[in-house]
Amino acid sequence: MGLDLGAILKSGGLAVSDHDAIVSINIFIALLCSCIVIGHLLEGNRWVNESITALVMGLITGGVILLATNGTNSRILVFSEDLFFIYLLPPIIFNAGFQVKKKQFFRNFMTIILFGAVGTLISFVIITLGAMGLFKKLDVGPLELGDYLAIGAIFSATDSVCTLQVLNQDETPLLYSLVFGEGVVNDATSVVLFNAIENLDIGHFDALVLLNFVGKFLYLFFTSTVLGVATGLLSAYIIKKLCFARHSTDREVSIMMLMAYLSYMLSMPHTKNFSLLLAFRKQHDINIFLIISSIFQLLDLSGILTVFFCGIVMSHYTWHNVTESSRVTTKHTFATLSFIAEIFLFLYVGMDALDIEKWKLASSSPKKPIALSAIILGLVMVGRAAFVFPLSFLSNLSKKEARPKISFKQQVIIWWAGLMRGAVSIALAYNKFTASGHTAVRVNAIMITSTVIVVLFSTMVFGLLTKPLLTLLIPPRTGLNTSSLLSSQSMDPLLTSMMGSDFDVGQISPQYNLQYILTAPTRSVHRLWRKFDDRFMRPMFGGRGFVPFVPGSPVERSAPESHLGTVTEADNS
Amino acid sequence: MGLDLGAILKSGGLAVSDHDAIVSINIFIALLCSCIVIGHLLEGNRWVNESITALVMGLITGGVILLATNGTNSRILVFSEDLFFIYLLPPIIFNAGFQVKKKQFFRNFMTIILFGAVGTLISFVIITLGAMGLFKKLDVGPLELGDYLAIGAIFSATDSVCTLQVLNQDETPLLYSLVFGEGVVNDATSVVLFNAIENLDIGHFDALVLLNFVGKFLYLFFTSTVLGVATGLLSAYIIKKLCFARHSTDREVSIMMLMAYLSYMLSMPHTKNFSLLLAFRKQHDINIFLIISSIFQLLDLSGILTVFFCGIVMSHYTWHNVTESSRVTTKHTFATLSFIAEIFLFLYVGMDALDIEKWKLASSSPKKPIALSAIILGLVMVGRAAFVFPLSFLSNLSKKEARPKISFKQQVIIWWAGLMRGAVSIALAYNKFTASGHTAVRVNAIMITSTVIVVLFSTMVFGLLTKPLLTLLIPPRTGLNTSSLLSSQSMDPLLTSMMGSDFDVGQISPQYNLQYILTAPTRSVHRLWRKFDDRFMRPMFGGRGFVPFVPGSPVERSAPESHLGTVTEADNS
Repeated sequence: MGLDLGAILKSGGLAVSDHDAIVSINIFIALLCSCIVIGHLLEGNRWVNESITALVMGLITGGVILLATNGTNSRILVFSEDLFFIYLLPPIIFNAGFQVKKKQFFRNFMTIILFGAVGTLISFVIITLGAMGLFKKLDVGPLELGDYLAIGAIFSATDSVCTLQVLNQDETPLLYSLVFGEGVVNDATSVVLFNAIENLDIGHFDALVLLNFVGKFLYLFFTSTVLGVATGLLSAYIIKKLCFARHSTDREVSIMMLMAYLSYMLSMPHTKNFSLLLAFRKQHDINIFLIISSIFQLLDLSGILTVFFCGIVMSHYTWHNVTESSRVTTKHTFATLSFIAEIFLFLYVGMDALDIEKWKLASSSPKKPIALSAIILGLVMVGRAAFVFPLSFLSNLSKKEARPKISFKQQVIIWWAGLMRGAVSIALAYNKFTASGHTAVRVNAIMITSTVIVVLFSTMVFGLLTKPLLTLLIPPRTGLNTSSLLSSQSMDPLLTSMMGSDFDVGQISPQYNLQYILTAPTRSVHRLWRKFDDRFMRPMFGGRGFVPFVPGSPVERSAPESHLGTVTEADNS
Repeated sequence: MGLDLGAILKSGGLAVSDHDAIVSINIFIALLCSCIVIGHLLEGNRWVNESITALVMGLITGGVILLATNGTNSRILVFSEDLFFIYLLPPIIFNAGFQVKKKQFFRNFMTIILFGAVGTLISFVIITLGAMGLFKKLDVGPLELGDYLAIGAIFSATDSVCTLQVLNQDETPLLYSLVFGEGVVNDATSVVLFNAIENLDIGHFDALVLLNFVGKFLYLFFTSTVLGVATGLLSAYIIKKLCFARHSTDREVSIMMLMAYLSYMLSMPHTKNFSLLLAFRKQHDINIFLIISSIFQLLDLSGILTVFFCGIVMSHYTWHNVTESSRVTTKHTFATLSFIAEIFLFLYVGMDALDIEKWKLASSSPKKPIALSAIILGLVMVGRAAFVFPLSFLSNLSKKEARPKISFKQQVIIWWAGLMRGAVSIALAYNKFTASGHTAVRVNAIMITSTVIVVLFSTMVFGLLTKPLLTLLIPPRTGLNTSSLLSSQSMDPLLTSMMGSDFDVGQISPQYNLQYILTAPTRSVHRLWRKFDDRFMRPMFGGRGFVPFVPGSPVERSAPESHLGTVTEADNS
């Protein structure tokens, strides 16, 4: 895959100097190693986590380079949104889907969509309107309506990586699944929003355009999900039918890795690339590329959603079809790749923050970026509060007594968890306000520096305060949902976490009737799904209890619930 | 790491069209998946293996593209030697070092060096002289002495991947370690040879230049090894001292992966890059880069050797310091990455083979490349025979009765195993005869097409015949060295293979005196090393029996031989 990045980086206007490439790689890898070691040493510290360590390391390295080069350069590498979207984001999102506790995620599915899609839209509107009202007083420069809309989208993209490092999936499963799920849907929503704005004809903005936009979003959400699920099921089917397990662990792991990446690349947002491709290919009359690219252009999907659902399907079906070694390997490999990508990202943002070119350009009025950042941070906080509390209220209203409601303390944590702005914001800002990492226009330089300030401030200050805030609001091990932790401590942690990340199959109760369906729709859909899963999906695609190599599998195939029910209940209760 | 490839590909004159990057990635990943699936389906077949499948798939895809584009283009991607040396080779070589049975490797160390270094030089001389004598009759074009020397180096680089897929490390450990070890040393030797020739001042070739060349080779071999060992030991020390295992498997795996890659990148052959860097940086007066690049320029090492020894040290020390999950994960992850890289490589070579541009340029005289290829193949066979049989004789002479000699049948297999030419040859040929994948000179086009023919023919025809030849010469399970297989079958295959890949620690016998040292030097050095390892290295860097988390480790630490001796003896005898 590596070779293609060359093209993509180049097409994005390559930002790296040719000659120091190898030195850069070496320095970067050495820095990554140091971050891991330092992060490990600071493990016990309640204020710091790996992201902040990487950010600080990046800042320090940038500073050292700045001094060494007598203030002419601070960067080993210039930020490239393509690098971010092609290499760093996929492993992070895939691993998120692969490791998430699916039961919690699907139980809170409606709330997550409410927060991630509706919430992001509310936040987007408030930030856009606020920016339009407040920026004009600062005399920043000539910003158009499109710019304000883009600013709204850029600063609606939350970065929950920091919070998720602090939240514990076992201690606070509801909170974790909400913050995590919202983060994924939010990423997708803001990227889609941003792309839609880029293609928007501002002059003719009316209800029809809005409707079109909403329709496009729904289409995108649906098709991306279907593509991800289809790829995941295909991998499960191939591995189950061909009995890879008999021969080779390496093949199984290869297929899983390659198909996961394929699902992402199939639905990469690549309108730009493909219109170019079409233009290029038409001249040369190359038919096969025309056909392929037309197909792809039809599917202008969200890779984030696709790879996320591919991860979920793979952990539900494919993962159970492979050998024990492959299970351990895939689980840890995906986690490791995600881990490295995250550290890489923060290191990168840290180094990029000191880029002297932008600061010089913006420094004719040094107070402006700071004032601007303060305004944006305020808008972000207001915009988030404006949807977290009302939507939590809505969500609680719709819940029956049996289901956990979102307490006020939890609402505060959800609000706080989404205040951080990260690499998605930076990537979108670079896309909007620079030509491949460089800008010569003052207003653009101010916008970039403001984005960097917002990201650094929110990640470092808000990020540092997350752990103490959490400890204050939810004292460890005495929170609402600690039973799962206690009951699963005696088990092997690896198996527990993977078992727990599955749909529950052991709780089919007898009171299954029409009235129940009407009063508790989500729960009933969940039950119906489980029946369908047990009868048709698992026998077809494999999954827990349906692996062909388990000794005595014919017995278990008829009653997998009885065998595994206890483990699941203990873990997921 | 990805981002740097952009720079490197660009510096090598980027070969990928900007616009079809994403389509290319998708097609390529889909093809990789198909190769794995088809390779799996053909598993039982005695003629075919995964390399040949990938090669054929590449040829077919190239043909389809050729038809679809009306004969104007056959390639999704142009071959880039940088892609090869930066992305594909490191995982293959590292995994080789990580999984090799170290005992066998070090027992036959002298023979391996003899074959890999001296043998390659003999082969190089014969091919160069033969080419100088025979090519002139064909009237190929204006080739200089430097070109002939380069041809010698290009076709001295063997590709034993194919053979190693067929050979069984358990059934024929001696053969495997010889073929495998020779392959690694041969790769290093031919790359070094090639680089030395590129920098050679042909006009002033005398004994001093030769001496200088030999000195440089020895220096390179030594320093590369030391750097690899040092990086491996550093990783072992960090993981042991910081007790990563208590907290996180992901960190352990990350550190191992990053440090392995770091070892390779630290000793990348990058003279060219760094002289450019120096020139570039001097103008801008940037001191830190000057210093760093000077250090790197001093260490112009062979990444292949470095990463290979890093792999050996990591599997001997680091691997034993990590958690059980990390062991399974690293073992399979490295194997998987290597597996994907190999398939990628053969697919790539297959697609590149049909590149129409070169064929058109060379097709004014269609018989010439074929005649040339036939000559080269003949020279390769003669050149290899000229060192395998005499050096085997030498090696057998120096061996005492207790040690297995290389039988004539085994010599034939060793000879055969090195006849294949692969990606290293292609990479070197592209480096010599093209400017970043393109050429306009007829003689260069002929040389490239001949190289492609030699690689395709040797890999497919010789490769196809390897399995039958092997079955003919060494009937399965009745070979010389099957005892290890039989005695280890009752054990967990994973643990067996890793245990077996360790130095033997259980055979320190009492007759340890000066006379014995003199009569069996290699064996005694091995014993001395084991004593040193047990007394100083393992307590410092960890390793089998010295992991801090094994229950009852204080007892085992004083006598690890008694505890683990049985397993080791059974496995390594």
